[in-house]
Amino acid sequence: MNFEYSDKVKELQEKLTLFMDEVVYPNEAVYERQLNEGVSRWDEPPIMKEMQAKAKAAGLWNLFLPDSEYGAGLTNVEYAPLCEIMGRSMIGPAVFNCSAPDTGNMEVLVRYGTEEQKEKWLLPLLNGEIRSCFSMTEPGVASSDATNMEATIERDGDEYVINGRKWWSSGAGDSRCKIAIVMGITNPEGPKHERHGQILVPLDTPGVNNVRQLPVFGYDHAPHGHSEIEFNQVRVPVSNIIWGEGKGFAIAQGRLGPGRIHHCMRLIGAAERALEIMCSRVQERVAFGKPLAEQGVIQEWIAESRMDIEQARLLTLKAAYMMDTVGNKVARKEISMIKVVAPNMALRVLDRAIQSLGGAGVSDDFPLAAAWAKSRTLRFADGPDEVHRSAIAKMELRSQAKTQEKKQVMS
Amino acid sequence: MNFEYSDKVKELQEKLTLFMDEVVYPNEAVYERQLNEGVSRWDEPPIMKEMQAKAKAAGLWNLFLPDSEYGAGLTNVEYAPLCEIMGRSMIGPAVFNCSAPDTGNMEVLVRYGTEEQKEKWLLPLLNGEIRSCFSMTEPGVASSDATNMEATIERDGDEYVINGRKWWSSGAGDSRCKIAIVMGITNPEGPKHERHGQILVPLDTPGVNNVRQLPVFGYDHAPHGHSEIEFNQVRVPVSNIIWGEGKGFAIAQGRLGPGRIHHCMRLIGAAERALEIMCSRVQERVAFGKPLAEQGVIQEWIAESRMDIEQARLLTLKAAYMMDTVGNKVARKEISMIKVVAPNMALRVLDRAIQSLGGAGVSDDFPLAAAWAKSRTLRFADGPDEVHRSAIAKMELRSQAKTQEKKQVMS
Amino acid sequence: MNFEYSDKVKELQEKLTLFMDEVVYPNEAVYERQLNEGVSRWDEPPIMKEMQAKAKAAGLWNLFLPDSEYGAGLTNVEYAPLCEIMGRSMIGPAVFNCSAPDTGNMEVLVRYGTEEQKEKWLLPLLNGEIRSCFSMTEPGVASSDATNMEATIERDGDEYVINGRKWWSSGAGDSRCKIAIVMGITNPEGPKHERHGQILVPLDTPGVNNVRQLPVFGYDHAPHGHSEIEFNQVRVPVSNIIWGEGKGFAIAQGRLGPGRIHHCMRLIGAAERALEIMCSRVQERVAFGKPLAEQGVIQEWIAESRMDIEQARLLTLKAAYMMDTVGNKVARKEISMIKVVAPNMALRVLDRAIQSLGGAGVSDDFPLAAAWAKSRTLRFADGPDEVHRSAIAKMELRSQAKTQEKKQVMS
Amino acid sequence: MNFEYSDKVKELQEKLTLFMDEVVYPNEAVYERQLNEGVSRWDEPPIMKEMQAKAKAAGLWNLFLPDSEYGAGLTNVEYAPLCEIMGRSMIGPAVFNCSAPDTGNMEVLVRYGTEEQKEKWLLPLLNGEIRSCFSMTEPGVASSDATNMEATIERDGDEYVINGRKWWSSGAGDSRCKIAIVMGITNPEGPKHERHGQILVPLDTPGVNNVRQLPVFGYDHAPHGHSEIEFNQVRVPVSNIIWGEGKGFAIAQGRLGPGRIHHCMRLIGAAERALEIMCSRVQERVAFGKPLAEQGVIQEWIAESRMDIEQARLLTLKAAYMMDTVGNKVARKEISMIKVVAPNMALRVLDRAIQSLGGAGVSDDFPLAAAWAKSRTLRFADGPDEVHRSAIAKMELRSQAKTQEKKQVMS
Repeated sequence: MNFEYSDKVKELQEKLTLFMDEVVYPNEAVYERQLNEGVSRWDEPPIMKEMQAKAKAAGLWNLFLPDSEYGAGLTNVEYAPLCEIMGRSMIGPAVFNCSAPDTGNMEVLVRYGTEEQKEKWLLPLLNGEIRSCFSMTEPGVASSDATNMEATIERDGDEYVINGRKWWSSGAGDSRCKIAIVMGITNPEGPKHERHGQILVPLDTPGVNNVRQLPVFGYDHAPHGHSEIEFNQVRVPVSNIIWGEGKGFAIAQGRLGPGRIHHCMRLIGAAERALEIMCSRVQERVAFGKPLAEQGVIQEWIAESRMDIEQARLLTLKAAYMMDTVGNKVARKEISMIKVVAPNMALRVLDRAIQSLGGAGVSDDFPLAAAWAKSRTLRFADGPDEVHRSAIAKMELRSQAKTQEKKQVMS
Repeated sequence: MNFEYSDKVKELQEKLTLFMDEVVYPNEAVYERQLNEGVSRWDEPPIMKEMQAKAKAAGLWNLFLPDSEYGAGLTNVEYAPLCEIMGRSMIGPAVFNCSAPDTGNMEVLVRYGTEEQKEKWLLPLLNGEIRSCFSMTEPGVASSDATNMEATIERDGDEYVINGRKWWSSGAGDSRCKIAIVMGITNPEGPKHERHGQILVPLDTPGVNNVRQLPVFGYDHAPHGHSEIEFNQVRVPVSNIIWGEGKGFAIAQGRLGPGRIHHCMRLIGAAERALEIMCSRVQERVAFGKPLAEQGVIQEWIAESRMDIEQARLLTLKAAYMMDTVGNKVARKEISMIKVVAPNMALRVLDRAIQSLGGAGVSDDFPLAAAWAKSRTLRFADGPDEVHRSAIAKMELRSQAKTQEKKQVMS
Repeated sequence: MNFEYSDKVKELQEKLTLFMDEVVYPNEAVYERQLNEGVSRWDEPPIMKEMQAKAKAAGLWNLFLPDSEYGAGLTNVEYAPLCEIMGRSMIGPAVFNCSAPDTGNMEVLVRYGTEEQKEKWLLPLLNGEIRSCFSMTEPGVASSDATNMEATIERDGDEYVINGRKWWSSGAGDSRCKIAIVMGITNPEGPKHERHGQILVPLDTPGVNNVRQLPVFGYDHAPHGHSEIEFNQVRVPVSNIIWGEGKGFAIAQGRLGPGRIHHCMRLIGAAERALEIMCSRVQERVAFGKPLAEQGVIQEWIAESRMDIEQARLLTLKAAYMMDTVGNKVARKEISMIKVVAPNMALRVLDRAIQSLGGAGVSDDFPLAAAWAKSRTLRFADGPDEVHRSAIAKMELRSQAKTQEKKQVMS
Repeated sequence: MNFEYSDKVKELQEKLTLFMDEVVYPNEAVYERQLNEGVSRWDEPPIMKEMQAKAKAAGLWNLFLPDSEYGAGLTNVEYAPLCEIMGRSMIGPAVFNCSAPDTGNMEVLVRYGTEEQKEKWLLPLLNGEIRSCFSMTEPGVASSDATNMEATIERDGDEYVINGRKWWSSGAGDSRCKIAIVMGITNPEGPKHERHGQILVPLDTPGVNNVRQLPVFGYDHAPHGHSEIEFNQVRVPVSNIIWGEGKGFAIAQGRLGPGRIHHCMRLIGAAERALEIMCSRVQERVAFGKPLAEQGVIQEWIAESRMDIEQARLLTLKAAYMMDTVGNKVARKEISMIKVVAPNMALRVLDRAIQSLGGAGVSDDFPLAAAWAKSRTLRFADGPDEVHRSAIAKMELRSQAKTQEKKQVMS
């Protein structure tokens, strides 16, 4: 039992924190301004490229990738505290080429991609030259049950033909987004979890129609965006299939483990920053004759926030530790747990910070409201709370039953 | 004890519900489209005028005003269930000329305005020809304690000179907004609650600078808007003062009672609509082999929502009843209570509805996310939760102490 | 819409409050002392009879019974505020012959009893000469689903033979408890809700074995008690059946409506008293230089408690009003709602009061811990929260569906 | 970062678990029976001595004491998972001589006791021959602020004279309890936290009057008990003072750190056992056609409980780790955090388990209600939640301010 980060991690934490202080935070407003003043909100503001160049130069690039051939080769437990720091800023992860859904897509390509697929899509993604999206969720069915997915990927000679309507294809708004990983039915007669496949679809393929961008609590999340995309008789070569027909859920599982925990790490960073803002503000502002910081109710919010964050961070680290030591499959209870805990925790902390700031809190003068809206989506994205809770309960019931059995056998 | 609405109210409820079904709901999308396609987001979409004309024709106009000379002459308890119905749509209140802050401003003018002020500003407001705003909150101080307010209104001969910076002047974004009621220090040496006055400031007066529009989460709330306004050596005639110097808090109290309860009524409507949407959606969507509506956790959300709404509505009605029977001053504990209860209730109900819809819930395909963001501001606007709770507690402690004393005297 | 109690009710409230102040509260400690010093904890302390005599003399007797032949003939909405006052003391309801389960049993006999049954059991109960119990819950099955009940009531000639094991037969501990209403299977082949009957079983019948008294959080609730009773080949005449074979659930429904709401009324009284104690204590005690009453967190507890109580009371009154005006069946959604709301509300208020008193709060120096333990049982007795929530949701879904249909037909 | 227990700990966990399964759990009912059938509830049931002998023989004795001269010499982080296992049973800690307040008293004597004091009181306590109590809390003042304490310890020649009234002197009910550590004013003119001292008072000293035993909800916690003790002109030799006059708070701080975290460890054990009982029960019981375990709401309770426990355990371990590595003083924020988190967590888990069992849950057929009542006291014992929250907030505000300063200096 050891709660200390390794020296390597501490060094990276320090470096990253300094980088955030010097490069990222001061450019948040610049980014926002360039976005508003640009020709289109869907082109990335030029300041991003500048920051990315600095991050690359500083060796803070692709830290997310446990694979050491392509990435930094950090374990999950090493990456967690770093990802947390990046998550303190909405634009942070992109600066370090560590933003979703590209990270997940890159991992999928590293693990399951052919050499050709890697060359064509992985390398430019690793270099930050292009962006990608993941098209899974569909507007027509309840996405909490992923087996509901209705899009089809049908073989026709040397090609696959894709039909269907997807939404919440996040990142597809960006003019630099070139490739989608699309999930759909390849084996209609297969068993429930071997019915779907994943396939690479360049966004400029005929029949791909980016219908609209979906807002999140009024935010367009430009230039990233959340696209609704129509796939209408879209044809790609058979070599674009990932791993093989029917492997969709197997890939999704491999993808979602790290994807989910990365989200959690970032949420912890967002919560830390909110607490920092709250603490700073309540010491400056005076009401009824004393600083807000001296009022009992405000102190309760601060204390609850600190307790919430600490617990969620420890659970995230433990889940990461288990992924590293016993593998994502054995760690799936911990992953589901942190997937429920972290967004709810972040929302509580952010809400208290917002309340302590009043009007400023819901505006864009502080990063609280935007972080709240984004965090809110993580209570249903990648599996809603209620589905994860049900999964946790089932695993718990099974493991309790096993313990009881063992005791009875022994006695 | 009678929980029945009067026949008069029932008739108006029916009429209003029909109007909402036929005129308002179907035009929500039209309004949004016109807003996006118009020359400026700060001009009201033309469909509003059309709907307002129909509302006037139907006798559903100015229902909020208890004064029967100018308005419908309904009591608070009569208006409550009607205001609730209007609150089901974000554009509802404006259709019936019952939207904040105009309602509050009109009430202030009816109660405290001179004949000249009424003629000049009240009548066009009652006719829906112009809009108004209320400039109270300031960016530089903690607004939870209104006595912090620092703007100044200084007499200089026949004029008052106004200086200060206000924000969250809601409604000032609208190009039809012509007049602000501004609150500021008139009597710097006066006792704490007799130090401020309220004054009428036409927005085209030199020195009035509408600096920017503040977003609420990602919403700009156009064309209404929430303005930050700089008042820089703004001069208005002395006749523009309302009631008199030092009367600012007295007016604010009169204004905030009805203002707060109207917000609560609308929040109940918004919650009802959210529950309606949730119930409808969960019956259509299937996950894990059965409709969401048959899943225990979803049922819990529906039941909790119904219980939340019923209780908040009853408390609102009781507060309204007390305002009608014993007056706003005696009813101020009830008003504070409902001011805390209603927004928190609405946020819970809306959050459950959002969760049951997933991605659709946070988008603008449904009115849930927008209603959530607006409701969130009401946990601090017009007095934050924590200030109202403290006020309720003090009143409770006093009344409990009085009861104890009486018992001791009697025994 | 009228939130005023009638003059008749106000007069009774005043009378009852005075009686509580003069007779009940001062004798709570006497009752406890007599209980501890008596020969057996299962004999009622003599002070109870004295108080009952005074209550009878004051005309405060059997107020619960809407039937005017046998009882006070009050409506539910009239009785509610009175029952609330009685509920402020654990010994209150018994003083006025208004305590469960006798009230429910008397109502059953008034509604469904034969003349013989009334003469033999109803009259002595109405006079407070004997006590009764209701034997429904069984240790062997999940009681949340009442159709699980396995005890049998089999006809054998002129007798019914009863077999089974019941627990939580509350009131059966009292040496004056003479009669049980037992529920069990009479029609094993009948439809689910017409399979059970209810029958009168004198507790001195051979084969009735009062196995043990069940504690509630360490309280034995003597002399009342919660018995586990074995019914082993118990024979009673066929005339003891109530209404008829298979009528068990029909009777239970009629019984549970008023029974549930009475519990809720008492819970509101218990919560009011807790708030009173909390308010009084926090004004006396000083910590960190000022009375607890001036500390923000304590004020929040007081305010939340007042808001919780007000809302629950209004919902209780509305449910009572509906029972009076549209009948228990139509009011069953409201009854279920208040059955969930009231115990949870009382537990929150009591918990805050306990916390504000610290050690004194969990001891028997104050009535808080005892009231908490009793209130806790009401989250599952007479239907657990989760079952009521599910029922509320289903009714809500049905009524929403109906509204939608109607709208579609009309348009 | 390493979330694995050491091999030494794992071995002890296994041994202890086996001991609990074979010796402790099966004797819980025996203990209860002996207690009820004994001459007095205040004599320890003989089965305890038998179990203690076995524990000693198995080397599972005094594990709590980090001092290796007298105890097992385990670090806090090593002891935590073992203490958790003991905490699964109400009688567990006593079996291993690891129960409060004796553990705290022994630690105080090890750290601050003279050789004479150690010989006379520490050794018999270490051997489990006698019991002890700690007399700090007073009925007359708000104990949340310990500086309120009014009892006096006045020097008079070779003796100290103790006067005052204490309550919640836990453990003083036991007939084997021989010694109290009493806290009171020694230096009335000293600074706030150097005004009190701690002194050893044999319970058979003239003037010591054990007034009554206080119940916790309905539990008397016999034979342990919670005494109200009057100290009336009690005289003890000056050599009985611990450390010195004015050292009371210094000792209390040293004592409370480990004491608090031990409570938290036990609470985690209690919560684990509750979850185990809940999981087992809901798989056996059927309602509405399927096992409770398959119902969504029950699954939510199980999942929430697992998440609650995991997070609280990790925070406890981290606090223990910090106590081991940076000392109790630096770790005091973590200690305060876990002191708030653990009892609230245990209460939630226990409450869900109780609800899932219904009537059985509040009775003594399962250890849930008793554990709930005991856990409830830990929301105010050793510092109420609200005081710890305030302390956490102040530490957080200070540390945030320091970070900001450092950043400003660096930039």
